[in-house]
Amino acid sequence: MIARASTGAFADRVDEYRRRVDARLEAILSAGGTPAKLLEAMRYSVLGSGKRVRPLLAYASAELCRADAGIDAVAAAVELVHAYSLVHDDLPAMDDDDLRRGRPTTHRAFDEATAILAGDALQALAFEVLCTDDALAARPDRQVRVIRWLAEASGPAGMVGGQALDLAAEGKRVDEAGLEDIHRRKTGQLIRAAIMMPSELGELTDEERVRLDLFASDIGLVFQIRDDLLEVEQDTATLGKSAASDNQNEKSTYPSLLGIDGARRRADEIHARAMHALASLGPACAGLKWMSDFILTRAY
Amino acid sequence: MIARASTGAFADRVDEYRRRVDARLEAILSAGGTPAKLLEAMRYSVLGSGKRVRPLLAYASAELCRADAGIDAVAAAVELVHAYSLVHDDLPAMDDDDLRRGRPTTHRAFDEATAILAGDALQALAFEVLCTDDALAARPDRQVRVIRWLAEASGPAGMVGGQALDLAAEGKRVDEAGLEDIHRRKTGQLIRAAIMMPSELGELTDEERVRLDLFASDIGLVFQIRDDLLEVEQDTATLGKSAASDNQNEKSTYPSLLGIDGARRRADEIHARAMHALASLGPACAGLKWMSDFILTRAY
Repeated sequence: MIARASTGAFADRVDEYRRRVDARLEAILSAGGTPAKLLEAMRYSVLGSGKRVRPLLAYASAELCRADAGIDAVAAAVELVHAYSLVHDDLPAMDDDDLRRGRPTTHRAFDEATAILAGDALQALAFEVLCTDDALAARPDRQVRVIRWLAEASGPAGMVGGQALDLAAEGKRVDEAGLEDIHRRKTGQLIRAAIMMPSELGELTDEERVRLDLFASDIGLVFQIRDDLLEVEQDTATLGKSAASDNQNEKSTYPSLLGIDGARRRADEIHARAMHALASLGPACAGLKWMSDFILTRAY
Repeated sequence: MIARASTGAFADRVDEYRRRVDARLEAILSAGGTPAKLLEAMRYSVLGSGKRVRPLLAYASAELCRADAGIDAVAAAVELVHAYSLVHDDLPAMDDDDLRRGRPTTHRAFDEATAILAGDALQALAFEVLCTDDALAARPDRQVRVIRWLAEASGPAGMVGGQALDLAAEGKRVDEAGLEDIHRRKTGQLIRAAIMMPSELGELTDEERVRLDLFASDIGLVFQIRDDLLEVEQDTATLGKSAASDNQNEKSTYPSLLGIDGARRRADEIHARAMHALASLGPACAGLKWMSDFILTRAY
């Protein structure tokens, strides 16, 4: 059951929610029919690591939206898409990273073909999870709208488009508007979907959903600015991926455009704007508020 | 409007159906919001070439199932998944092909990163097309079942799993059962989905759907055996892709296991079994019958 915000602090439920999505992911990645090596690579890419930020945002949003049935499937599906995107982004032809979350990237631990296929399979599996969840099936009209959020967030105008713009921008000077566009697509759209998918299953008014969407769009941008800052603040050992790899690839980042202090101020400003949109949604937004503070201040 | 089988020969409608799916694909790949180079690579991978076998099977199945609304979306979605799979299969880390349909493969015409992203985007777009089609939205319960067919056919137990097994089998001797498993997954599942998705939108009885599924599963295998045969029968110029590239990669094929005549006999046998399943479905199966004969005898 999704807890009501009034029953205690979201921080006390984070571990439980993490366990819930991990249990669901484990079950999804234990189903028969998948060739052994492919399954192993998919499990390697999804299980045993990761902050589960997007699932936690989905659970926090579900508390606000008074949604419950089907949220585990939503949380798992959005994490599957996130995991696939990391596997493909790390490929030699893309960001060419050897480490991710302190471990060899999937193409390093397996091979490049297996990594490409594991990513492809995880994307398809995300949609399968949403199609086959019994709780979601009770309301197929809402189920389709949930699937649509994921498809649009992942697709050419969303996450994949953002990665394409990011690669095209390497070695070029991008202004802040251009960088914001990349970040909003590459990272922001999937975070937005994680928050908005539960709204299709809950009881918000249209006006409340508009305000939630304003919050959801901005908090994804805050997440990515914080990610840019972590790249320059931390060394490889702490972060668990090759620090300053953005710099090596000559990518524009918020710190490179605005300086470290300027990037921090920008993150604070956008976070404040997101909090303003959220505040009008009442006490049940406490979970999203807690997640937003984590996103702004996280050290990993 | 989907024609009724009684209104004339399917052969007379093939060009019209091809125009319909091409028009839909053109519209899908003209929508705003996609970065220019990514969109160009997606269009290159989908438009202007291709036999459109899977869309034509969907239209032929729709005639049998008396389905109409939403079939263009189904036909387009299944072709988008097919196109993405070709782009990824051709990558250097996979089959490493330079030519496809007589033109440079997508990673040759653009670059490897763009090809990976174009494939990723086409997969997401296929699901988006099914989620956003107005005609499908009129029956969301059926719409979800259509999406589910595509997700399961594309995923780790289906098409992607088949490609993983295919790569794992390179340089090894695979027996016919193993090869059949690879072909049924890698090629068969998506062809099966193309035929079964319209059945969710039509008026078949449960028993008729079981028989259609038997046909659908077998005809996909026939398609792939014929593909194996074309590889050895034809030269590069005629086929438009590097002939005998399967042989260079030391892949087991039906001709390599059974000889050319043996492979032809096996295709004939499975085709006959598929025709038997189809025959009981009455005169409206004429389109699927025509497509099956094309699949068995095609020279390209």
